[in-house]
Amino acid sequence: MLRDLLRAAAEARTVAIEGRVREVVAAYLESYQSNDIDGRVALFAADGTFEDPVGSEPMRGHEAIRAFWEAGAAAFRIEMALDRLYVSGREAAFNATATLHDKAGDKARIRIIETMCLNDDGWIASLRAYFDVGSID
Amino acid sequence: MLRDLLRAAAEARTVAIEGRVREVVAAYLESYQSNDIDGRVALFAADGTFEDPVGSEPMRGHEAIRAFWEAGAAAFRIEMALDRLYVSGREAAFNATATLHDKAGDKARIRIIETMCLNDDGWIASLRAYFDVGSID
Repeated sequence: MLRDLLRAAAEARTVAIEGRVREVVAAYLESYQSNDIDGRVALFAADGTFEDPVGSEPMRGHEAIRAFWEAGAAAFRIEMALDRLYVSGREAAFNATATLHDKAGDKARIRIIETMCLNDDGWIASLRAYFDVGSID
Repeated sequence: MLRDLLRAAAEARTVAIEGRVREVVAAYLESYQSNDIDGRVALFAADGTFEDPVGSEPMRGHEAIRAFWEAGAAAFRIEMALDRLYVSGREAAFNATATLHDKAGDKARIRIIETMCLNDDGWIASLRAYFDVGSID
């Protein structure tokens, strides 16, 4: 069967770090449920970058990334739900839905694609968030 | 409303090249329906790269990219269907489903995320395809 051939080829490319990629994605998403900003920041390499949205100036390093999320947390509670995840070597791309709840009880939903790349030590070297006007409702 | 504030912020970031990004993504997908490999290759910058899957050695330039698709076309007819598209500056990420039909009438489906980045002239500088074993059925 064609699909068995394609799956075998994909299996043959699977490398050890993919398990770590899946762990980091899971921990990243879980950090939103538990509102654990420190835990989320700790997933990044010391010089890791976060670009949100893609095309803006990336934040670099724990201090800059923490400041961004702390400012967000002062305004919103964020729920993140994973839709689809594709892991390819040390990189991943995933669909997620972020639901933002503000202090007044209002909410908005942003559907995004994020791409993540780990460094050799298994920490996030780069996280990039793609979304646009059409993904907000 | 929170969603109106978020949408206004996203609108304010919208830049002129985004229309071109949407055109190139549409032309790329259409080239599969019309089996127009030359047209697909022509969307790339002369030194553009295609990495399929992410983590493998990128193909660079028209000749290498054309050879890859011509080898594929000798074995499969490929249908590509767009699911979701997010455009962020000169970059895009999209979900698509590739359905491969081989000469024997067998078929397989691969769900992927691709990321695309245009150069200043509006041609593809980089195209990267994320998929894994779990996305093949």
